[in-house]
Amino acid sequence: MASGKAMEQAMPWPPHPAPRARSCPPAALRRWLPLLAWLPHYSTQWLRMDLVAGLSVALTVIPQALAYAEVAGLPPQYGLYSAFVGCFVYVFLGTSRDVTLGPTAIMSLLVSSYTFREPAYAVLLAFLSGCVQLAMRFLCLGFLLDFVSCPVIKGFTSAAAVTIGVGQIKNLLGLQRVPRQFFLQLYHTFRSLGETRVGDAVLGLVCLLLLLLLRLMRAHMPPVPPNTPPGVRLSLGLVWTATTARNALVVSGAALMAYSCDVAGYRPFVLTGEIVQGLPAVRVPPFSLTTANGTVSFSQMVQDMGAGLAVVPLMGLLESIAVAKAFASQNHYRIDANQELLSIGEAASGASPPRGVGPMVVMPVREVLARLVSSVFTRSATSACSPCRAPSLPVTLSRLVRRPDQRPGLLLLLLPGHRQLRAAALAAVIIMAVAPLLDAGIARTLWRVRRLDLLPLSVTFLLCFWEVQYGILAGTLVSLLILLRSVARPGMQVSEWPVLVVQPAGGLHFPAIEALREAVESRALGASPPRSAVLECSHVCSLDYTVVLGLRELLEDFRRRDLTLVLVGLQEPVRRVLLSADLRAPHFPSLQEAERYLSQEPGTQPHSFSHDSVPEPLLRC
Amino acid sequence: MASGKAMEQAMPWPPHPAPRARSCPPAALRRWLPLLAWLPHYSTQWLRMDLVAGLSVALTVIPQALAYAEVAGLPPQYGLYSAFVGCFVYVFLGTSRDVTLGPTAIMSLLVSSYTFREPAYAVLLAFLSGCVQLAMRFLCLGFLLDFVSCPVIKGFTSAAAVTIGVGQIKNLLGLQRVPRQFFLQLYHTFRSLGETRVGDAVLGLVCLLLLLLLRLMRAHMPPVPPNTPPGVRLSLGLVWTATTARNALVVSGAALMAYSCDVAGYRPFVLTGEIVQGLPAVRVPPFSLTTANGTVSFSQMVQDMGAGLAVVPLMGLLESIAVAKAFASQNHYRIDANQELLSIGEAASGASPPRGVGPMVVMPVREVLARLVSSVFTRSATSACSPCRAPSLPVTLSRLVRRPDQRPGLLLLLLPGHRQLRAAALAAVIIMAVAPLLDAGIARTLWRVRRLDLLPLSVTFLLCFWEVQYGILAGTLVSLLILLRSVARPGMQVSEWPVLVVQPAGGLHFPAIEALREAVESRALGASPPRSAVLECSHVCSLDYTVVLGLRELLEDFRRRDLTLVLVGLQEPVRRVLLSADLRAPHFPSLQEAERYLSQEPGTQPHSFSHDSVPEPLLRC
Repeated sequence: MASGKAMEQAMPWPPHPAPRARSCPPAALRRWLPLLAWLPHYSTQWLRMDLVAGLSVALTVIPQALAYAEVAGLPPQYGLYSAFVGCFVYVFLGTSRDVTLGPTAIMSLLVSSYTFREPAYAVLLAFLSGCVQLAMRFLCLGFLLDFVSCPVIKGFTSAAAVTIGVGQIKNLLGLQRVPRQFFLQLYHTFRSLGETRVGDAVLGLVCLLLLLLLRLMRAHMPPVPPNTPPGVRLSLGLVWTATTARNALVVSGAALMAYSCDVAGYRPFVLTGEIVQGLPAVRVPPFSLTTANGTVSFSQMVQDMGAGLAVVPLMGLLESIAVAKAFASQNHYRIDANQELLSIGEAASGASPPRGVGPMVVMPVREVLARLVSSVFTRSATSACSPCRAPSLPVTLSRLVRRPDQRPGLLLLLLPGHRQLRAAALAAVIIMAVAPLLDAGIARTLWRVRRLDLLPLSVTFLLCFWEVQYGILAGTLVSLLILLRSVARPGMQVSEWPVLVVQPAGGLHFPAIEALREAVESRALGASPPRSAVLECSHVCSLDYTVVLGLRELLEDFRRRDLTLVLVGLQEPVRRVLLSADLRAPHFPSLQEAERYLSQEPGTQPHSFSHDSVPEPLLRC
Repeated sequence: MASGKAMEQAMPWPPHPAPRARSCPPAALRRWLPLLAWLPHYSTQWLRMDLVAGLSVALTVIPQALAYAEVAGLPPQYGLYSAFVGCFVYVFLGTSRDVTLGPTAIMSLLVSSYTFREPAYAVLLAFLSGCVQLAMRFLCLGFLLDFVSCPVIKGFTSAAAVTIGVGQIKNLLGLQRVPRQFFLQLYHTFRSLGETRVGDAVLGLVCLLLLLLLRLMRAHMPPVPPNTPPGVRLSLGLVWTATTARNALVVSGAALMAYSCDVAGYRPFVLTGEIVQGLPAVRVPPFSLTTANGTVSFSQMVQDMGAGLAVVPLMGLLESIAVAKAFASQNHYRIDANQELLSIGEAASGASPPRGVGPMVVMPVREVLARLVSSVFTRSATSACSPCRAPSLPVTLSRLVRRPDQRPGLLLLLLPGHRQLRAAALAAVIIMAVAPLLDAGIARTLWRVRRLDLLPLSVTFLLCFWEVQYGILAGTLVSLLILLRSVARPGMQVSEWPVLVVQPAGGLHFPAIEALREAVESRALGASPPRSAVLECSHVCSLDYTVVLGLRELLEDFRRRDLTLVLVGLQEPVRRVLLSADLRAPHFPSLQEAERYLSQEPGTQPHSFSHDSVPEPLLRC
């Protein structure tokens, strides 16, 4: 692994960075299809590394994928489908070699709010989310993601971790008939604690402890020094494998135990549903749904999902891009956020752009969460440590899951107990996966750094328990309101001596002009006797028309009282706007000159905006 | 009038400015009831001036009020009620002596969109609007008004002028059965041009010409020199009276003519409805409505008015405060925007705070538009020229309209023709009143000053023809988006030599941090070879948590490559936030020191944020 790092620094990624010129077709093509950049350089050594990486990722992903299907309220096989389908597209289009696309705890939770335990909804939601993401790419709406502030993301992920964790307590303890809505769930879980099934509870807690232990071991594994004897190296390798594949170990151990009990005719554990064998057929997404109560039309389905069509694509993108950026920074390469948007959108909608067919032609179908493309932080963290060299790891992963005979391959290996899963073991996997998302220290940090940001954090956190989209929306709105407040009421630095100087601390935008006018007038014209003043504009980088009008009125107010308002430190664009608005005001480059002018010292001529009265060079000051 | 001006400068307004201390009851009371400040100083000379002002205002207001009722789709007497009821409250609570409260063309248009020609809706809307305004006052939401930018206001007023003007063409030409929706109205008006009634068209156009002529005369009246002989002074006074009372002259002239025709048994003109005599009873607003089709409940009425409950109060406030500020600036006194909000809100909801009963106890009722409190620019312009001394002019005005015998007094004088109005004459009054609102030059000005502001202008202008609230909302949103765009993508000043210096041109808020990171990293880490950089933060006045996190990652990215990012020109609050976030970065007060440090000159030690390693004085740099 150390050698992998050394090699990396010797060989920049991508091996030959594609030039940015749009006119050159191969370069442009390489930008759209990053696969073309790395495939010609693919070596057998990389293949070996990718195999190791793929295997270790698969051992983490597969149990998680099964568990997340449960979180999303879908049959377990949908988790498996989703674990490898998105990857295929990402191999061709993605720019990050560490990100694996697939279901995440948070996306699964989001999906569960909009799909009503009905796979058809999930497939359609995935498809439409991909279309929305693609549309965002082509409408250049990627900047929207910038408006989701960090406290909102933290509030949302923490709330999601709590929701998911609480939702798994019932599985951990073998409780049944607990509703899915958070508050009801909490209430029913605690009310029916007495009905805990001993078998499930013991299995779940043992799994939980085991996972915790293995994770701690993994976290404290010492680096392997170069001159380690082979025996020690082998044992360390075994520990590494065990800790990496801890999810698979725990789930298959539980399955094995359950199988033994089953053979002995004793069934102490709650099972999840039967896993359907084989791969689903490639089909167009369902644009209508036939239920026992009649057919649900496409528009009705879209209406049912409602806000999900905005929340799911946005949060998916946020997750993916954040993860990709984190790894890019850690491993010293740069990702192209726009290209990322493209590949994620296309993986999500299953479009195949190389053949230029657009997002509406569908490649694989029914692999639900697959299209709810997003990245698992835990999983990506595994692969970033493994020495994989290209985004080809998903290929390996997909191979492991999908055997030529079209039946889940590795899956059978891992799940002997009639391919049925122990709900308690999966619950332990999920709880361990979401625990790190609950960032309890964030509130303390915000209290120390900026208390105002506690507001969007807590609004998001609390409302997310009610409805995820309301939480994110309200948190973002609160962030925006705080931002707008600071834009509308910029700090004013006022110095009174020797002349009154008012300086807006930030820029000057239209909501701020009334406050500025009030600040200047109350101190200058409201004083007794009224006096002239200086407006220091060095922090102002642009003016809109409302501000120009406000300044004009301010200057008028001074002029009507036979006083002067002097502008100081105008940036060039600001000066040009004032000139074009025909605003005549004395202005100076420096405060000293303005002060001299106001104290009526001879020899100081103010610069002026009027075209005629001022020699040309002054206009370019 | 000249003497009035001189007196004014000798005597500040209000005569004894109330001190701001909240503990002193008389001062606080005087702030809440500005009447107490000026009433003790009221003189007989002021009374004489107020009488002249009141009469001249009344002669403008009364015909306009009748006409605006037509615009609002209400019976004409509601215009009259509204012209004096709001004034009573404003006398006690208002801080501007020039503003008269009453119906305006724009508010009447707004009201017409939400009241479906049904007075009960108008009364309820007025009452609820007042409550909303009062609530805004107590929730300190006055700042919301700052977010309606100037292009939006211009777009809205221009569209309103066009809508109202086009709506009056049918009255001017005596066309009938033309629908009220703008586009339909336009279409039907042009289609039925052939059905023009000659009598009405002639009357209307003559009135229009007459009004135009009188207005031009008024605009070009020379100032009266002090040594004018009494005869000339008298004739100038007559012209002044005629031009001031032009609305009343034209309307009563038309009425007189129509009355003559009527007596002769010949009816060439379309009449508006009969005016109900006497004043309405003081009642609680109608919280339900009984129609031929059954009873409409309160919640149904509120639902019907919908967005009107937000648009009407907001636009009313915007209009009033803008007008009050304009006059305050022109006549050298200051208004208290919060107090303004209070008095307008209370005039609107008819509450009587001196007795401390809150907004829900109702004083006068059924005087519809009265509560749709707002100011008529044209009318206020008249009173600002008249030598009135206190906000007592509405008292005079009210007296003129409301005689002790409870019947409209002056009204009978003005309208001999069975108290019926000539629609064509009123249309001419309305068209002349709204024509100045159509600011055709604004587009050219914006093109010159700031082209981007044409976008909110045109969005507002165009959408206002469809639905007023959508126009204002969309325009405000567009303004906000433009503002947010500039906040999210602040200009970056980059200088490459001798070291790379990146300086955000404005402040740094959370949506901008990704763009900043991208700008710095692409130029520093993306260059070959990668190099250190300087981040110039002198324009940054505050940091939120997202920005702090982004800066931390940026510093990490540099550190991981063994490069340095140096911060320069940190303002004290920014430095304190970075310190509290435990962000360790070299920072210097000036660019020169940073450049020396980066070129490894000995003797330059960066300031550092860590508490332990740096001597105390540096922390206070």
